[in-house]
Amino acid sequence: MTIHISVDAMGGDHAPAEIVAGVLQAAQKWPDTGILLVGNQDAVGPILKSLVTEVPENLAVIHAPSVITMEDTPVDAIRKKPDSSIVLSAELVRRGEAAAMVSAGNTGACVAIASLLLGLLDGVKRPGIAVPMPTPDGCAILIDAGANMSCKPAHLLQYGAMASVYYENIFGVKRPKVGLLNVGVEDAKGNELVKQTRSLFQKSTLNFIGNIEGQDIYRGNCNVVVCEGFVGNVILKATEGVAETVEILLTKSLRGLVDSQGRSQLGCDPVAIVKEKMDYAEYGGAPLLGLKGACIICHGRSRGKAICNAIRVARDIARHQVNDQIVNQVRDLPQ
Amino acid sequence: MTIHISVDAMGGDHAPAEIVAGVLQAAQKWPDTGILLVGNQDAVGPILKSLVTEVPENLAVIHAPSVITMEDTPVDAIRKKPDSSIVLSAELVRRGEAAAMVSAGNTGACVAIASLLLGLLDGVKRPGIAVPMPTPDGCAILIDAGANMSCKPAHLLQYGAMASVYYENIFGVKRPKVGLLNVGVEDAKGNELVKQTRSLFQKSTLNFIGNIEGQDIYRGNCNVVVCEGFVGNVILKATEGVAETVEILLTKSLRGLVDSQGRSQLGCDPVAIVKEKMDYAEYGGAPLLGLKGACIICHGRSRGKAICNAIRVARDIARHQVNDQIVNQVRDLPQ
Repeated sequence: MTIHISVDAMGGDHAPAEIVAGVLQAAQKWPDTGILLVGNQDAVGPILKSLVTEVPENLAVIHAPSVITMEDTPVDAIRKKPDSSIVLSAELVRRGEAAAMVSAGNTGACVAIASLLLGLLDGVKRPGIAVPMPTPDGCAILIDAGANMSCKPAHLLQYGAMASVYYENIFGVKRPKVGLLNVGVEDAKGNELVKQTRSLFQKSTLNFIGNIEGQDIYRGNCNVVVCEGFVGNVILKATEGVAETVEILLTKSLRGLVDSQGRSQLGCDPVAIVKEKMDYAEYGGAPLLGLKGACIICHGRSRGKAICNAIRVARDIARHQVNDQIVNQVRDLPQ
Repeated sequence: MTIHISVDAMGGDHAPAEIVAGVLQAAQKWPDTGILLVGNQDAVGPILKSLVTEVPENLAVIHAPSVITMEDTPVDAIRKKPDSSIVLSAELVRRGEAAAMVSAGNTGACVAIASLLLGLLDGVKRPGIAVPMPTPDGCAILIDAGANMSCKPAHLLQYGAMASVYYENIFGVKRPKVGLLNVGVEDAKGNELVKQTRSLFQKSTLNFIGNIEGQDIYRGNCNVVVCEGFVGNVILKATEGVAETVEILLTKSLRGLVDSQGRSQLGCDPVAIVKEKMDYAEYGGAPLLGLKGACIICHGRSRGKAICNAIRVARDIARHQVNDQIVNQVRDLPQ
């Protein structure tokens, strides 16, 4: 059976041009996958025409004329703008016409609309954003990056379980190592939430390695980093901030050594190397785990490559039946 | 009146050698400041002798024979090991023989021992660790970096006030900008703690700029970043982790271009530039604000330069009567 993915053409800093570019890459790469590009036909059509003489057979444009503004609440958006690109992308998944949706639009709106329209998987209490964080040899998954501001221990336990299933299927690592983000490795460290969560994890069959600290996120000694949405969101943005500061520093210190292509005297461009590694857009977006169907949230500044990567992730989630495995895994957790 | 600073000679990864080196730099730099180097005479004496033919007049060694281990609770340490270097350093401040203490030892032990022995300033509810974070043109102060795991809104408000006084005096910026770390800039964003704290800040006379996000910590648009100890600690360590990852990346990508001194072909060493900027040890330690006297906590891996910088901070806090100003500032906060 062909897998279909709906893609919001209108969300993101570089929409619709870069979204269209990414979708074309994906359509050419995976001819077995149907891509439903959801956006304003008048905006999307000319861009498509400028990029290809013939639109690939597995790519269809779904017209979505209205636009969700920052003033629309998610409930308003669903009720009053069912023909907006985010709502329609989610609606296609809800109706089973697509297995997953991809959007680089407003994260809050995506989370709310996808949660409302798709609903939770059996047994799942809260959805969580599973975002890739750079490590020397690949990436770790941090969950939750901002869907759930005030978590209970049971939510964090489920996040660990869901992200383990995701990591195993997408990155091919059996029994990924799960760490609980804390201020120290000792049992007594941390707030009440992490202390209670820790003992739940210890009773589970997950590959729980215990407390980890902030620096461990990027060291690669842990595959899944579990934390509350407030903390995860701040960390995610702080990571971007540090990378940005380093890029500014390097650009300054290497001025004169690097030409506009960044290659003249060094044989490589250190700024670009840092940028590429630290830019989580490159890793293919962040799934909102725990929902029926799937929703992949991309960074607002995603370009074509990142959108294509996100479509790959959406496709892999569907192909590997990650959701069925999540339901099983969550059912087996200690209560 | 001469200011005296007590310095724990035994705490930190490079103690006592680097502590002694830093203390010597400071003693030579500020002859008007008395430095009480607290540590095991048998360990400290020979190092001093190897570094100088004559110990500066303003430097005295205070013998502290016992060692606090990871097994000692702070209360145990104070009761059973009053002659350990951390307890004795704090005791000198409590007795008024030193204005401030500096330690690169176990942070948890420092916080607990200093809090127990020195006590809180009038009106202050909780002490907070005020740690410098790198920005393009200097640093911002993040408070709390881990003294107080579960904060109330009134604690965060006081942190903003205390760190404002500190920033103004140490970095010479009038009415520093105070930001509340959150997941978005909008009022409705965040958890209950930040929502309630935000309205307290708005009623205060502090230069409150509203919510800030993770990336803003390093952008320099905010001088004081306020957050709960759990979040601050994780962010602090995550910042180190990102910097570490970037250093590994750069070292790999520049291999062959940089010799062991790091200077041959580039005219500069990008790895060293990043390291120096991102290494918060360089900025002179983190004061535990809110205590009578002062306690400057240094990074465990501090070397001589960082210890000397921390002594400068301790000295400046005493010279500028930062504590008196904090008491006044806290008294004027909305209840």
